Amino acid sequence: MNDDHDVTVLRLGHRPGRDERMTTHVGLTARALGADRVIMAGSARGRTDTIVDITERFGGPFAVETTEEPKRTIRDFEGRVVHLTMYGEPIQDVVDDVRADHGTGPLLVVVGAEKVPFEVYEHADYNVGVTNQPHSEVASLAVFLDRLFEGRELDREWDDPDRVVVPKATGKKVVEPDDE
Amino acid sequence: MNDDHDVTVLRLGHRPGRDERMTTHVGLTARALGADRVIMAGSARGRTDTIVDITERFGGPFAVETTEEPKRTIRDFEGRVVHLTMYGEPIQDVVDDVRADHGTGPLLVVVGAEKVPFEVYEHADYNVGVTNQPHSEVASLAVFLDRLFEGRELDREWDDPDRVVVPKATGKKVVEPDDE
Repeated sequence: MNDDHDVTVLRLGHRPGRDERMTTHVGLTARALGADRVIMAGSARGRTDTIVDITERFGGPFAVETTEEPKRTIRDFEGRVVHLTMYGEPIQDVVDDVRADHGTGPLLVVVGAEKVPFEVYEHADYNVGVTNQPHSEVASLAVFLDRLFEGRELDREWDDPDRVVVPKATGKKVVEPDDE
Repeated sequence: MNDDHDVTVLRLGHRPGRDERMTTHVGLTARALGADRVIMAGSARGRTDTIVDITERFGGPFAVETTEEPKRTIRDFEGRVVHLTMYGEPIQDVVDDVRADHGTGPLLVVVGAEKVPFEVYEHADYNVGVTNQPHSEVASLAVFLDRLFEGRELDREWDDPDRVVVPKATGKKVVEPDDE
């Protein structure tokens, strides 16, 4: 986001049929809340179209990529790796360290579906829990990004949108950028 | 949560087949991040089992209810109504007001799927956007609750769990409560 080092979100463990909308929401949440790129692993690659389409309509930059070798993506990543998991250390205890690391280089944020291979836990520099309760990888990603960026992502501006939503107390207002 | 006034999450607009896991994740996120109750509207009522099951295993209190008349739930609610929508006012601008209202009475947080009836916008005391970008009702709910409770929800304790996850830097540790 902006002049920060890049934040990439890697979506692992997508199960066709079951996870279609969850995976789309991982990608859209990554984009909306300040990440620079999402990488969809394996069978999740079919979910890229919606995210590309939203980026074309509502603005970028935001990159959408796919990989057949997610473990290699993690292993070869040149920067810190954060794995979001209910088994990890409390976000409130570690996010300051993660933010300090992100001040010096890029970050890879790994979000799984139900079963994540043990190597991911081992390769991660941080295994981070947004609570130690079972809930949602989308919720965990959202809280993590909001705390990483300390809310700055909410004021992000977008390049080349076809349409812009104008906040309203009631109702909906969508304009073309020149109308603003 | 604890001694606070109740926070209820109302799930609207569930589309069978398409939204099954999203709706489950709305309920689990509500529970994990400090709400007291979720109400599933209409066809979403089939999604209550997983949330009840997680509450039995990981602890409560957390109530799961259903309604055939969600508009009446909103109309008759005795407290403030917050509707999360990408068309609403920026969360960073209104959350302090919402928190002040929650200091004096219960809160109903409405999250829709794609199409929410206009009456909901009108009946809501606050239409709130977690960014004005399209992303995920699960992500919006998570950021909203984290900011409403200012992180206190992360330290919530649970009554009568069968199992407790113990945070770890690497790997997984789950114990029965007496082992702790």
